[in-house]
Amino acid sequence: MGRITSRTPVVTVRLGHESRRHADVLAVEEPLEIRVAGEPLAVTMRTPGHDVELAAGFLVSEGVISRGDQFRSAIHCGGAATQLTPVRQTGPSPAPTGNTYNVLDVTLAPGVALPAPDRARRFYTTSSCGICGTASIDAVRTVSTFDIAGDAVVVSAHLLAALPTALRAQQAAFEKTGGLHAAGLFDAATGEALVVREDVGRHNAVDKVVGWALINNRVPLRGTVLQVSGRASFELVQKAAMAGIPILSAVSAPSSLAVELAVSSGLTLAGFVRDDRMNVYAHPERITG
Amino acid sequence: MGRITSRTPVVTVRLGHESRRHADVLAVEEPLEIRVAGEPLAVTMRTPGHDVELAAGFLVSEGVISRGDQFRSAIHCGGAATQLTPVRQTGPSPAPTGNTYNVLDVTLAPGVALPAPDRARRFYTTSSCGICGTASIDAVRTVSTFDIAGDAVVVSAHLLAALPTALRAQQAAFEKTGGLHAAGLFDAATGEALVVREDVGRHNAVDKVVGWALINNRVPLRGTVLQVSGRASFELVQKAAMAGIPILSAVSAPSSLAVELAVSSGLTLAGFVRDDRMNVYAHPERITG
Repeated sequence: MGRITSRTPVVTVRLGHESRRHADVLAVEEPLEIRVAGEPLAVTMRTPGHDVELAAGFLVSEGVISRGDQFRSAIHCGGAATQLTPVRQTGPSPAPTGNTYNVLDVTLAPGVALPAPDRARRFYTTSSCGICGTASIDAVRTVSTFDIAGDAVVVSAHLLAALPTALRAQQAAFEKTGGLHAAGLFDAATGEALVVREDVGRHNAVDKVVGWALINNRVPLRGTVLQVSGRASFELVQKAAMAGIPILSAVSAPSSLAVELAVSSGLTLAGFVRDDRMNVYAHPERITG
Repeated sequence: MGRITSRTPVVTVRLGHESRRHADVLAVEEPLEIRVAGEPLAVTMRTPGHDVELAAGFLVSEGVISRGDQFRSAIHCGGAATQLTPVRQTGPSPAPTGNTYNVLDVTLAPGVALPAPDRARRFYTTSSCGICGTASIDAVRTVSTFDIAGDAVVVSAHLLAALPTALRAQQAAFEKTGGLHAAGLFDAATGEALVVREDVGRHNAVDKVVGWALINNRVPLRGTVLQVSGRASFELVQKAAMAGIPILSAVSAPSSLAVELAVSSGLTLAGFVRDDRMNVYAHPERITG
């Protein structure tokens, strides 16, 4: 869609100097409404592009689907359909033709239970119903269908320490805008980058990665590392767990609930992964060397 | 509540060295369910503390209230009530007494229209109903009750450039955890810090600041600058506009929609405010010197 970045006039003020007017490049943020069978399910403020993957990953995160064959097709309302089965989307989306590309309608396979209109909201309500963080964790664990604790993959500390640089090298838009989060999926054995996605929202970047994997029939993502550019919140650990990712690595700090969920889910969680060191907050047994 | 940070065991892995087990300090993240008159309205993943301000600010951001006298009281369900009128909450919340402090029930003044249970969701759905970013902006502008464009305040570039350092100096918990966003409200004329709040979620930090202002009858926040520690998204500009804040300054990049909303709302938006320079993306006429 070519809408990942946009140009805007800006005034640069420098103390003791003349102000300077010029054009700057910004990360684009626009709302995306995700519908399932015509029913609005959620709205997310996202960077346009890879919307089908975003919707697919969101549905995995919410526990609606967990296999590629459950996600049939997606269409930008009023615009071109993107048929995903059997033809998979690998290239960029079609160019705009009067369509705003901000509403995406998903068709699931017959037999997949449709989410109730307020499913996401009820899920969160349930998960916080007055007990404590542990209640949230229990709620998540019941909907996750994958055995992360049973993934015996190991990763070398050297490989893990190199992933933030590898992720940054693939971030096409960040250098221009300084305003995009990134998430990248890497093979734990070889360090090969499987997919990298950028977005103004870190949760969207992860959903796009997970959606890519779902569409390519790679969920559950055994034997992989998810590297994210910022912090690790509860939400990101939850998304990794729902996709069966055994190792989550963050450039910056995790939150308390992120650590609790990683520990109880059997997910390895590393934070402050920089240069030659890292902190491992959960399940360090997967890290060797 | 003393739950802003927590300690956790961690393994620090350093390439070529022995791994070291020790205790690390994390930013606490827990769900808060906000209820109005007993009806669940929203759940946010937040850092505990200043929950009453968070709820008040959230209700301002959503357009439910805009004056201090509309916010009557708030009670952590099953625990101690926090009476806000006429006694205002200024100190820390009471210590836990078996209460989880993760559900807060708000009582509004008689005559304030209660939000429908799915109001927040409908608002977002409406704001993205297939047109473009401009549709979102129009939706926000109709609910904002304050004339930001009419606020003739000016701020010196020197004062503005000093705010990120001033904000950081007041961030109690960041240095320990590296995992908290901060938002601070400053007087545009004197640079005085009016309030600083921290949270794992940047939107929560801003809601806490706005809620503090509402409870202290300072909304609309004419003549102030809101300084935030990270990026400026659409959501943050929206929250500033709803509280009548005329100037928003971010340490990092704004998004495209943040700039569009700032331009159309009459709000001055500065980004990349660091050391002796800044980029001004909207309404630079308020910045002098």
